[in-house]
Amino acid sequence: MSAAASFRVEKDLLGTLEVPSDAYFGIQTLRAVHNFRLSGVPLSHYPKLVVALAMVKQAAADANRELGHLTPAKHDAISEACARIIRGDFHEEFVVDMIQGGAGTSTNMNANEVIANIALEAMGKQKGEYQFLHPNNDVNMAQSTNDAYPTAIRLGLLLGHDTLLASLDSLIQAFASKGEEFSHVLKMGRTQLQDAVPMTLGQEFRAFANTLSEDLARLRSLAPELLTEINLGGTAIGTGINADPGYQLLAVQRLAAISGQPLVPAADLIEATSDMGAFVLFSGMLKRTAVKLSKICNDLRLLSSGPRTGINEINLPPRQPGSSIMPGKVNPVIPEAVNQVAFEVIGNDLALTLAAEGGQLQLNVMEPLIAYKIFDSIRLLQRAMDMLREHCIVGITANEAHCRQLMENSIGLITALNPYIGYENATRIAKLALESGRGVLELVREEKLLDDDTLSDILRPENMIAPRLVPLKA
Amino acid sequence: MSAAASFRVEKDLLGTLEVPSDAYFGIQTLRAVHNFRLSGVPLSHYPKLVVALAMVKQAAADANRELGHLTPAKHDAISEACARIIRGDFHEEFVVDMIQGGAGTSTNMNANEVIANIALEAMGKQKGEYQFLHPNNDVNMAQSTNDAYPTAIRLGLLLGHDTLLASLDSLIQAFASKGEEFSHVLKMGRTQLQDAVPMTLGQEFRAFANTLSEDLARLRSLAPELLTEINLGGTAIGTGINADPGYQLLAVQRLAAISGQPLVPAADLIEATSDMGAFVLFSGMLKRTAVKLSKICNDLRLLSSGPRTGINEINLPPRQPGSSIMPGKVNPVIPEAVNQVAFEVIGNDLALTLAAEGGQLQLNVMEPLIAYKIFDSIRLLQRAMDMLREHCIVGITANEAHCRQLMENSIGLITALNPYIGYENATRIAKLALESGRGVLELVREEKLLDDDTLSDILRPENMIAPRLVPLKA
Amino acid sequence: MSAAASFRVEKDLLGTLEVPSDAYFGIQTLRAVHNFRLSGVPLSHYPKLVVALAMVKQAAADANRELGHLTPAKHDAISEACARIIRGDFHEEFVVDMIQGGAGTSTNMNANEVIANIALEAMGKQKGEYQFLHPNNDVNMAQSTNDAYPTAIRLGLLLGHDTLLASLDSLIQAFASKGEEFSHVLKMGRTQLQDAVPMTLGQEFRAFANTLSEDLARLRSLAPELLTEINLGGTAIGTGINADPGYQLLAVQRLAAISGQPLVPAADLIEATSDMGAFVLFSGMLKRTAVKLSKICNDLRLLSSGPRTGINEINLPPRQPGSSIMPGKVNPVIPEAVNQVAFEVIGNDLALTLAAEGGQLQLNVMEPLIAYKIFDSIRLLQRAMDMLREHCIVGITANEAHCRQLMENSIGLITALNPYIGYENATRIAKLALESGRGVLELVREEKLLDDDTLSDILRPENMIAPRLVPLKA
Amino acid sequence: MSAAASFRVEKDLLGTLEVPSDAYFGIQTLRAVHNFRLSGVPLSHYPKLVVALAMVKQAAADANRELGHLTPAKHDAISEACARIIRGDFHEEFVVDMIQGGAGTSTNMNANEVIANIALEAMGKQKGEYQFLHPNNDVNMAQSTNDAYPTAIRLGLLLGHDTLLASLDSLIQAFASKGEEFSHVLKMGRTQLQDAVPMTLGQEFRAFANTLSEDLARLRSLAPELLTEINLGGTAIGTGINADPGYQLLAVQRLAAISGQPLVPAADLIEATSDMGAFVLFSGMLKRTAVKLSKICNDLRLLSSGPRTGINEINLPPRQPGSSIMPGKVNPVIPEAVNQVAFEVIGNDLALTLAAEGGQLQLNVMEPLIAYKIFDSIRLLQRAMDMLREHCIVGITANEAHCRQLMENSIGLITALNPYIGYENATRIAKLALESGRGVLELVREEKLLDDDTLSDILRPENMIAPRLVPLKA
Repeated sequence: MSAAASFRVEKDLLGTLEVPSDAYFGIQTLRAVHNFRLSGVPLSHYPKLVVALAMVKQAAADANRELGHLTPAKHDAISEACARIIRGDFHEEFVVDMIQGGAGTSTNMNANEVIANIALEAMGKQKGEYQFLHPNNDVNMAQSTNDAYPTAIRLGLLLGHDTLLASLDSLIQAFASKGEEFSHVLKMGRTQLQDAVPMTLGQEFRAFANTLSEDLARLRSLAPELLTEINLGGTAIGTGINADPGYQLLAVQRLAAISGQPLVPAADLIEATSDMGAFVLFSGMLKRTAVKLSKICNDLRLLSSGPRTGINEINLPPRQPGSSIMPGKVNPVIPEAVNQVAFEVIGNDLALTLAAEGGQLQLNVMEPLIAYKIFDSIRLLQRAMDMLREHCIVGITANEAHCRQLMENSIGLITALNPYIGYENATRIAKLALESGRGVLELVREEKLLDDDTLSDILRPENMIAPRLVPLKA
Repeated sequence: MSAAASFRVEKDLLGTLEVPSDAYFGIQTLRAVHNFRLSGVPLSHYPKLVVALAMVKQAAADANRELGHLTPAKHDAISEACARIIRGDFHEEFVVDMIQGGAGTSTNMNANEVIANIALEAMGKQKGEYQFLHPNNDVNMAQSTNDAYPTAIRLGLLLGHDTLLASLDSLIQAFASKGEEFSHVLKMGRTQLQDAVPMTLGQEFRAFANTLSEDLARLRSLAPELLTEINLGGTAIGTGINADPGYQLLAVQRLAAISGQPLVPAADLIEATSDMGAFVLFSGMLKRTAVKLSKICNDLRLLSSGPRTGINEINLPPRQPGSSIMPGKVNPVIPEAVNQVAFEVIGNDLALTLAAEGGQLQLNVMEPLIAYKIFDSIRLLQRAMDMLREHCIVGITANEAHCRQLMENSIGLITALNPYIGYENATRIAKLALESGRGVLELVREEKLLDDDTLSDILRPENMIAPRLVPLKA
Repeated sequence: MSAAASFRVEKDLLGTLEVPSDAYFGIQTLRAVHNFRLSGVPLSHYPKLVVALAMVKQAAADANRELGHLTPAKHDAISEACARIIRGDFHEEFVVDMIQGGAGTSTNMNANEVIANIALEAMGKQKGEYQFLHPNNDVNMAQSTNDAYPTAIRLGLLLGHDTLLASLDSLIQAFASKGEEFSHVLKMGRTQLQDAVPMTLGQEFRAFANTLSEDLARLRSLAPELLTEINLGGTAIGTGINADPGYQLLAVQRLAAISGQPLVPAADLIEATSDMGAFVLFSGMLKRTAVKLSKICNDLRLLSSGPRTGINEINLPPRQPGSSIMPGKVNPVIPEAVNQVAFEVIGNDLALTLAAEGGQLQLNVMEPLIAYKIFDSIRLLQRAMDMLREHCIVGITANEAHCRQLMENSIGLITALNPYIGYENATRIAKLALESGRGVLELVREEKLLDDDTLSDILRPENMIAPRLVPLKA
Repeated sequence: MSAAASFRVEKDLLGTLEVPSDAYFGIQTLRAVHNFRLSGVPLSHYPKLVVALAMVKQAAADANRELGHLTPAKHDAISEACARIIRGDFHEEFVVDMIQGGAGTSTNMNANEVIANIALEAMGKQKGEYQFLHPNNDVNMAQSTNDAYPTAIRLGLLLGHDTLLASLDSLIQAFASKGEEFSHVLKMGRTQLQDAVPMTLGQEFRAFANTLSEDLARLRSLAPELLTEINLGGTAIGTGINADPGYQLLAVQRLAAISGQPLVPAADLIEATSDMGAFVLFSGMLKRTAVKLSKICNDLRLLSSGPRTGINEINLPPRQPGSSIMPGKVNPVIPEAVNQVAFEVIGNDLALTLAAEGGQLQLNVMEPLIAYKIFDSIRLLQRAMDMLREHCIVGITANEAHCRQLMENSIGLITALNPYIGYENATRIAKLALESGRGVLELVREEKLLDDDTLSDILRPENMIAPRLVPLKA
């Protein structure tokens, strides 16, 4: 086989280029690859985005077929190509860098060209014989990057949303299950890192579950609220110029049917073309989850600190040797990694915010970065949550005796005795305990301020960790 | 009157201090004033927060009265004090810096002390005679800073929400009204700062109105979703330790009644005590509005650029002389100021995010910064929106002839002729226009590719700016 | 006195306004006050900026006098006015909001007008009689906002720099002094919140001093490197249009002389007019200091956590009662406030970064926000450092016995015994200690692995906390 | 070959794992790969970091050899392994994710294990036969992750610094060359997007070159100032526990010799172990460069806007077809991509800042994220600068006639005529021009205010764009 045969020559407005003969992408994709060697992260890194692009192209083809603008033969071939991509084939042909100029034109053309060439082969033609089926005229018919691309991003996020929710839900279950397991473990609560009042370790873990549950509910409702309104049909700037008046509604309906997502047309297509508000808020919500995960992991690291010179109320499962120089040291590596993912997500939110602010007039040309950062945040969060659950939470154990000992030794315990021994005694005992280094219970017993029955009644978990009507006695 | 008489001596756990005799705040407030000389912004800067604090104290007093823990006389005096603060009196007594350590304890004590001293006077006592009514024992009864303070922040935000929405709504109306006014002004749309296809200036301004309308709707629904769940009654860490079992529900119901806000108890008080998620998302939403305002103001500055060497499609009303050295120069100072407010709000969101991430165990001790930044963002946004509407939007005029001339001279116009003269002709004409510097309409007329009737039909606004079924002719 | 007399009427390009008759500012300042009701922070909040503005005006007047463009009488009057402002008078007349559109024009005009009116009175004229001395023609002669304003910002920062350095230096001394005081206090070092190897508390505090010392040195050198290059003389866009060719050099030399700062002309005035790089890096450096302070305060809060259920190695001086509900609780309120200031500074850096990125073509119109945020960060940092030193660091005490006990009880101590008892023994002892809850020293003694002399030799501070050649024995 | 043979079994404190038999990494690396599936970016993505790790190991081995702790045979084998990695071999064996818990332990162990196994083969042993040469005992001898890892990061940054500077320098040259090329092109300068005063396009491009030159100088000096101080020899927390007293100095000297970088020991090893200040400032400097690049690219997009309805003073070279729906549209895709890279770098700086703030006590456990983000920012910036130069700047052309026409038609031109025709005439002409839509030169000529000779003298480039002493005539 000759060297020449390993390329085909393609042509566009700027001239010709040699495209590798086995490539399904074409000249415009190749130009983009040459132009944008930046992040090194290709579109194929985010399969849901690739699938969404194929669904958009399928929906457009269906609408164009129904309106009589696309022949049955072309429609069949395009449908065959889209179906294969939706199944997961040809993803490696989506080679353009996630960071790109041109407001997504290169992404859109990458999809158009790959679909055209798969379709051409399905029609018995050679790749590149665009006279039979054209990336722009046929695959991109009635579309502009400016409506097809934002639509695909929204759809891609919706398609991946359930797995994100599933990871979050599993993590919540893991925390909730530990909440159950530790429901009898009495310990001191801490505010401002200072000893406060008693609680159970179960309450602490249930709070982790509950705070994340709020995010699960919020994420579940926000995604459809924010992402189902699409601007497909708006073409270049939202006026729908040169589009068939019947196209928009048909295309959106087809896309909803194909994807199984409740997609609806945006009310103002001009507005929708440049509006990045949905992404800003959605990323803000991801940031919120990241902040919560970071706070929780900070807590896990604090609670497991020690073993001897820290708090040491819980043990995280060891995942790797800690130090060669310090035998036996095991570090909280999993929460530490989650913290870093959280910081990354917060950084992503900022980059996305800057990109959203950078829109001008009828378009936001920074949309590729917006897409990149939001897909990246989701992937990172999902992986971090799976890691946290699997490699850490499920294996956490409690040092129950130590928890109780810290509590019983705590001066904060006096708060619970307050209503029984009076504020004056409480203050005196607290002061005495601090100065002498002794425990308040010990001192109360010594001074016979309370008998053992009353004391053990007060110290029963159910009495310590909830409001309680104090028996009024003399 | 002697110098000594100008002070009263107050005492707390750390000792005594001289409090100015006319001050309604007391020793703990004074300590906080000495400790925290930071932002220079006192609590009184945010009246809704002060009012909310008073409402919380009133609700707690009501519940404590009903449960029999507070005497009628004390309840009356506290109620009198709270009512006066809610009316707007004594706000200047809220002197603690918005940035403070202690998780809001100083804010809470500032409220407790001011209310106690007003109440004491109402009872015919002297300020500082706490043996008759005590800031902690009576005003703060059954409360901890850790439940009273976050509750007041949420309530304060809810109380100010309508005015924020009103400012946003007025701005939207101003944009919508310009959308009407400019609905007949044909112009070129631009993508990536390059000439795209025609639209009307009215569509552009209506899109500004619509993108903000989405934020109005979102803000309207988010505030109650996020802020009405309160942790009042959780006391120190959410376990409600030492509180009357009946207190929580009563207090929340009273606060809802007093404030007229649909407040409900948080489901998990442990979780609610340290959870800052609501603020993170609410601030994220404010950031989104800031981003949109900034984008709109960037557009206004672009569209009014010139007058001779820029786009010059619109005129912003002059607000101040531009330059002494350049006669006649008038600058877009109002949108420029809005941009800067937007940047400030984005910076505030970051500071708040860091503070939210900094929570530890049973409390987020950085909550004062969270409160400060969110109140600040709201105030700034509201002022910026009022300024933008009043000093800029309502006075904008269009350079209609120039808009049309730019459009008619634009090569992008060829897109609209595409379906009539064919892609080949269109491309040739476009190229010829670019090289010669002539207009595409002129060239089309010269070549008699379209007769004048057809041309003027195509160029009619209603045909240019929406989808259109092209008449199929030979 | 009639109502009419309380105003004077001033006029500019946009018309007339009534200016309060006792105001030294004039119509353009008043317009700005009406336009920009945003942050509520007036220029007078930053006295060094006001002084710098007056110095710039003085320098320009001197140069104009020398070149013969300004009469001796006017020069004398302007000089008198500038001198008074530099002394600290009339600062309350600098009323414009720090956030403003117009790239600082309002700030510049506020200075021009106040100086003109003070000068007019010095000449025996009335305020507002600008025919005798004009804010623009005389005070602003040969200047544009675009060169005078950035110059004043840089100079204002330089003027305040020494006090910032002094606060930082005092804080460093406080840490260093504690480093001395605690040099004999043996304790466990911790990595990843896990027990690591021994060190002294003195080493820990000396490290705080040293890490801040690096910032002191860096800040000391960065300020002159970044801020002494000024664009005075560039007028509108840096071309120096209409300026006397001799003006620039003279004005810069005069400003250097007046201010005592080593100011030099920027090499490329076009570039210098819009370049915000110096502020971005300077703010980045302030952010670095904020990050270090936050890390140190996090450490202080960790080390003082407890008193019973935390680390409790040090005691922070109590600054205010912690909790009414929890008797005896004292919280680390000062470090907590520093953390929040640090977050604010990081948020400021972001707002400033956004503003810097928002420059366009020959100017950065967002410069007022840049100035605001950088002055604010400096003020906050300085106040926070003073607070931290005065209210916290100098009063810190060590719990020496507890430190030693934690160390001796720590399993990490085995690392120090490693070279003496062998890795195999060390590992076995460590494991035994963990499982039994006993101390490693106790076990080593029990097993007679080391005699008491050797053990106490190993445990001597000087041997524990530095490299040591292990005596090779059998 | 049997299935069993494709694995070898390795063992560590947590148990055994099957390591692929052809892998040079070992069990601890494998654990890290299992633990951290996060960013998907392996260490090998940053070759300079891998090389730096090998250099650190070489330096330690040299020092240990010299001190007699490592046998010549082991030293030879380790040296052989390090040399090969430094040459570029085996980089694909550095498989751990850049985001990882454990403060870099996994990175350090990846290096230790790969080097050990290469060395074992060089000694004629099998991979995994650690009894002959051990990853911890031999390769990691006298090191802790806590000193080896930060040292490698600093060194890796230094090693890559020259290529970053070279890319920046080439870009500067490209701008400077355009500055020359366009030095005769007169145009209007713009402030606040409004017409200001004349300048040349050459001045504008030279300013781009000069503003970046300042960054080149700053980056060149900052890197050695910040990154050459290393904590090698501090071991676990900086006390150098169990290290040979002679080790530190030797190791640092060797590393300086091997790398050719002027490395010096940190003055306070305790401080240096946890201090991230150098990275914060270095990243802040990269952010500054990103901000400048973004501003420049915004300008390029503005200046090339149009072609008909924008500014259109310059043409960017077309890089790819703009739009299928809009024939002939070419977009500024290269600057757009640079903007997005800049936003990414700003986001990276934030993530890094959060990580730096997250350090605790004797270590910053978030250092892996810090390393990742800083290497990423450098790579992105370098690629973006190369792309910008090669695909955009060198091909920019000027629309000279249009530039001059805009200028001559501008009202701002009147500023230059001011000194000749007087302020009163100037104001009148400016107003007339604005209202009539005519040019000021045309009006001046019509009114014969200036003769043609004088006018063309004023309009000569050298007179328009610099200070000029106006000839005093009647």
